[in-house]
Amino acid sequence: MRITLRVIGIGPGNPRQLTLEAVDALADVDVFLVLDKGSAKRSLVAARHEILARHAPADHRVIEIADPPRDRHPDDYDAEVRRWHAARAAVIAEALAGELADGGVAAFLVWGDPALYDSTLRIVDDLCAQPHLDIDVQVIPGVTSASALTAAHRITANRVGEPIHITTGRRLAETPDGADTNQIVMLDGDLTFRDIADRDDHIWWGAYVGTDDEILISGRVADVADRIVAARAEARSRVGWIMDIYLLRKN
Amino acid sequence: MRITLRVIGIGPGNPRQLTLEAVDALADVDVFLVLDKGSAKRSLVAARHEILARHAPADHRVIEIADPPRDRHPDDYDAEVRRWHAARAAVIAEALAGELADGGVAAFLVWGDPALYDSTLRIVDDLCAQPHLDIDVQVIPGVTSASALTAAHRITANRVGEPIHITTGRRLAETPDGADTNQIVMLDGDLTFRDIADRDDHIWWGAYVGTDDEILISGRVADVADRIVAARAEARSRVGWIMDIYLLRKN
Ligand SMILES: C[S@@+](CC[C@H](N)C(=O)[O-])C[C@H]1O[C@@H](n2cnc3c(N)ncnc32)[C@H](O)[C@@H]1O
Ligand SMILES: C[S@@+](CC[C@H](N)C(=O)[O-])C[C@H]1O[C@@H](n2cnc3c(N)ncnc32)[C@H](O)[C@@H]1O
Repeated sequence: MRITLRVIGIGPGNPRQLTLEAVDALADVDVFLVLDKGSAKRSLVAARHEILARHAPADHRVIEIADPPRDRHPDDYDAEVRRWHAARAAVIAEALAGELADGGVAAFLVWGDPALYDSTLRIVDDLCAQPHLDIDVQVIPGVTSASALTAAHRITANRVGEPIHITTGRRLAETPDGADTNQIVMLDGDLTFRDIADRDDHIWWGAYVGTDDEILISGRVADVADRIVAARAEARSRVGWIMDIYLLRKN
Repeated sequence: MRITLRVIGIGPGNPRQLTLEAVDALADVDVFLVLDKGSAKRSLVAARHEILARHAPADHRVIEIADPPRDRHPDDYDAEVRRWHAARAAVIAEALAGELADGGVAAFLVWGDPALYDSTLRIVDDLCAQPHLDIDVQVIPGVTSASALTAAHRITANRVGEPIHITTGRRLAETPDGADTNQIVMLDGDLTFRDIADRDDHIWWGAYVGTDDEILISGRVADVADRIVAARAEARSRVGWIMDIYLLRKN
């Protein structure tokens, strides 16, 4: 059975940040696949709903794929991860075979750009290894949350010619000297910059960037760190979840 | 005089990679500003033409701003750069004052995303410092050439949790150990990876990504370096100019 599988970047939250290519790619999708993913899912739900209502065919279907059971304390961690990934691919392949005719089109919507801290393309690799399915994979790039952040602050990510390091809260402390001139930090629930930044570094922070809830704070780290901590805590409890990102620049 | 100045990211070459937000932002622009910029201009021309024809108001104007004269061998280099930047801002401010009514809208189109290796936002900063103009700056993020590259190759920029370093050909040799796990290299006319990559590193290279001329080559550096060099030289002489980018990954 031959199918098309599209991985469509939908941008970081503002439904107008969808590309025309993504609009084209949505127009003939039979089945949208949704993986059960907790918090990421909650934030995607409203944006996804608006995007599908506006751009997907009227008779599209949405299939939620439940994660197969997983041993959280295995003797061999890597082997269990591999087994679980294969099991998940088998569940998705079965759903696709059941829902699509030969030549049908399925799609995953991905927050921001599919290349950046997102596992959908790895799942698609597992899927392509499944028997009985001949999958034509198409990937549609999207605006990243990094671009949304810099646009909202009306800044460039780099001064002339400088490199840019993109990392996570968990890895921020490991950035080598010399690579830390401009750092874009994602997935940082702990605002780790407080432990590693110099007082004179500059930070541009943003939460829910591009959406109606957008919050932007920028300044010298020593001047604005407390304000960011307070704004993040307040927003998180008010909205129920938070997505935030920042650019940290050496002086 | 109060005006709106939009800096609009148009994506890296495929006119369908424009966002809906950019389409909205183009719809009421009175004047598009084009800076005289040699090679960047040549590649922008066709994409810009198609985008304006399709999305700009029928009566829009395009103004080309000639660079003011510049001393290439000044005694004080920094002072001359500052003087020249201010002179350029004055020329643009004069053009805007002449072309726009109070409340008018001007725009710069920027290749890819305005935050990445582009000087338009620095020019806009100079402009905002000009007297007599009260400028409301709006920045519209775009898909980057980095996202176009990874989408074309259907890969992620990082393996799980890893950082990503974005740099230029000129700076590539300076990337510190530990920051070089995943490098996206732009503005590299010399294919500098040949001097710094390990034979076993993996490279994903792309030229004219997202356009009809797109060329993609990937593999182990030792296996594909010569093929990339040859393809680049051939394409460059055939097309007349080239834009290429690559992701280099440690094994
Ligand atoms: C799993 S990553 C996915 C990133 C996505 N693929 C992209 O291209 O932006 C999720 C992280 O992206 C960042 N993020 C995504 N959308 C955001 C938004 N609208 N505002 C602020 N941060 C955002 C946050 O750092 C969040 O922790
Ligand atoms: C001055 S920088 C501008 C980058 C742009 N602002 C962006 O977001 O991609 C120009 C460089 O971008 C890369 N580039 C831009 N468009 C490209 C494309 N369609 N294919 C390959 N590389 C591209 C090349 O490395 C080129 O040297």
